Amino acid sequence: MALIAEKNIVVFVGGVGGAKLALGLQQVVAPEHLTTIVNTGDDFWHYGLRICPDIDTVLYTLSGRVDPINGWGLSDDSTIMLETLRSLGEDAWFTLRDKDLATHLLRTKMLREGYSLTDVVGHLAKVQGIQPTVLPMTDAEVPTIVNTVEHGELEFQSYFVQHRWQPTVKSLYFKNIDQATMTDSVRQAIQNADIILFAPSNPWLSIAPILSVPGMRDAIIARDVPRVAVTPIIQGKAVKGPAAKLMGELGYDVSPSSVAAYYEDVLTGFVYDIRDENVETYDLKTISFDTMMLTDEDKARLAREILIWLNEREFV
Amino acid sequence: MALIAEKNIVVFVGGVGGAKLALGLQQVVAPEHLTTIVNTGDDFWHYGLRICPDIDTVLYTLSGRVDPINGWGLSDDSTIMLETLRSLGEDAWFTLRDKDLATHLLRTKMLREGYSLTDVVGHLAKVQGIQPTVLPMTDAEVPTIVNTVEHGELEFQSYFVQHRWQPTVKSLYFKNIDQATMTDSVRQAIQNADIILFAPSNPWLSIAPILSVPGMRDAIIARDVPRVAVTPIIQGKAVKGPAAKLMGELGYDVSPSSVAAYYEDVLTGFVYDIRDENVETYDLKTISFDTMMLTDEDKARLAREILIWLNEREFV
Repeated sequence: MALIAEKNIVVFVGGVGGAKLALGLQQVVAPEHLTTIVNTGDDFWHYGLRICPDIDTVLYTLSGRVDPINGWGLSDDSTIMLETLRSLGEDAWFTLRDKDLATHLLRTKMLREGYSLTDVVGHLAKVQGIQPTVLPMTDAEVPTIVNTVEHGELEFQSYFVQHRWQPTVKSLYFKNIDQATMTDSVRQAIQNADIILFAPSNPWLSIAPILSVPGMRDAIIARDVPRVAVTPIIQGKAVKGPAAKLMGELGYDVSPSSVAAYYEDVLTGFVYDIRDENVETYDLKTISFDTMMLTDEDKARLAREILIWLNEREFV
Repeated sequence: MALIAEKNIVVFVGGVGGAKLALGLQQVVAPEHLTTIVNTGDDFWHYGLRICPDIDTVLYTLSGRVDPINGWGLSDDSTIMLETLRSLGEDAWFTLRDKDLATHLLRTKMLREGYSLTDVVGHLAKVQGIQPTVLPMTDAEVPTIVNTVEHGELEFQSYFVQHRWQPTVKSLYFKNIDQATMTDSVRQAIQNADIILFAPSNPWLSIAPILSVPGMRDAIIARDVPRVAVTPIIQGKAVKGPAAKLMGELGYDVSPSSVAAYYEDVLTGFVYDIRDENVETYDLKTISFDTMMLTDEDKARLAREILIWLNEREFV
């Protein structure tokens, strides 16, 4: 534990799968050495509120408040507001539950007061008792746009929640990403990192927005430290969500190898699942672990296994 | 009833007291002949949401959804969001209950989409099953600013709710009121009115903002129809809220006569309460009724009494 505790870990995450690895890391890394950088491409305005689903999933998971059934939202939450909204004739397709609304209201208030999203996430983490650092990938609004066969362009949450990721994806882009900038906090975290991890999040929907922030990819590649992704694909399937379906639609072979290849020179290492065999990972340092994270113990174990492996002298 | 039903009634209202008379009128006037024009000086932005307390009180009252205990808010509402917000360290002094939030979210969404407040109120009235017309006094944002001895300038809800109307009022003004305009809907309602009523709302806090919208006062005075206010002051006290305290602080004698005088040439008639005697109302047509509206029957009775009186040939 000692060596692990002294290293600065940066982990890039999307939603539920990413939050699980972040929680595993939180259990085995001293809080001052752990920074979680979160996708914000799925953020959107809804009923006048700024909603950041991936950030909230990470914060709720790290604070122990997350709904254990869904992996997102708060446990023991209610839908009184939502049912009332529907009684007023609204479709209200996005789940805005009552306790959860407090987060959205506080965030929207702070943003309207002029605080940056980085400030807001820092405050939300603090008041939820989270000790490690959590950062949004950027303060800019850079919505992920999903171009679909059936409905044309959809904002991410419309694709993901309203249409239950059933439309066929032709392409993706990140609106206004050229105008986005890396924050000082993100730049510094990458600069100080001893280990850079990519959680088993959807590479196209969760990680690509992060890597598309101008300067991000170069800042990561410039670091001569282990840069390792964990596969979100196990035995040709996604653990959760649209990763496998999307890969097929975009013309990729649905395999850990395709994921490793997609990251290109961002990675120096790759973790695939023990259930897979003969995974081609080109010239990456590669290992397999049990990457299914069902319990909190699973999450800590996977985090510990990855860090111990990266801590071996011969890795870099 | 027949004569009453054929006349177009416009009633100007603020919050709880005004909503009560509007509900009384709704019971005795055909819906197509009743227009309620509501103060918006107490509207404000709070946690990213546009809150319109007087409008909501009117809509909730007319739809039968109002909390009968408070006279504002929705009946059988809960505070799950609010308690969560407080657990995140927020003061959260304004009562945002869970069912009530649906109204605020829907309103904020529509305003952000570019609908006017008039459109929004019309939609909210419709989905709550309200048949008479309800209009905001203007679509502009014209916050009532209360200049207090103890805290300097306060937005109305801060004075009214956060500080429980305890600060001493030096003066009042309506921010940006010079840039506000009357809407076509309000102009038309006044133009078509056969009877213009001012509910027993606070003249300084609820009616003055309405009369301060450029053109409003002149449009009302230009109409050669009964223009009648109901006193909010009974036996030297306000039925509810800060009217009496405020009158004293502003140097007025706390009496129905002061209210009648304050309206100046806006009125042609005045209704004071049967509990008061020797009320000086200058050259106004004057009558006394039981103006306490405790039950729905009281509200209908007072509305009917006023309309029957105004319907007498000799009034105008």
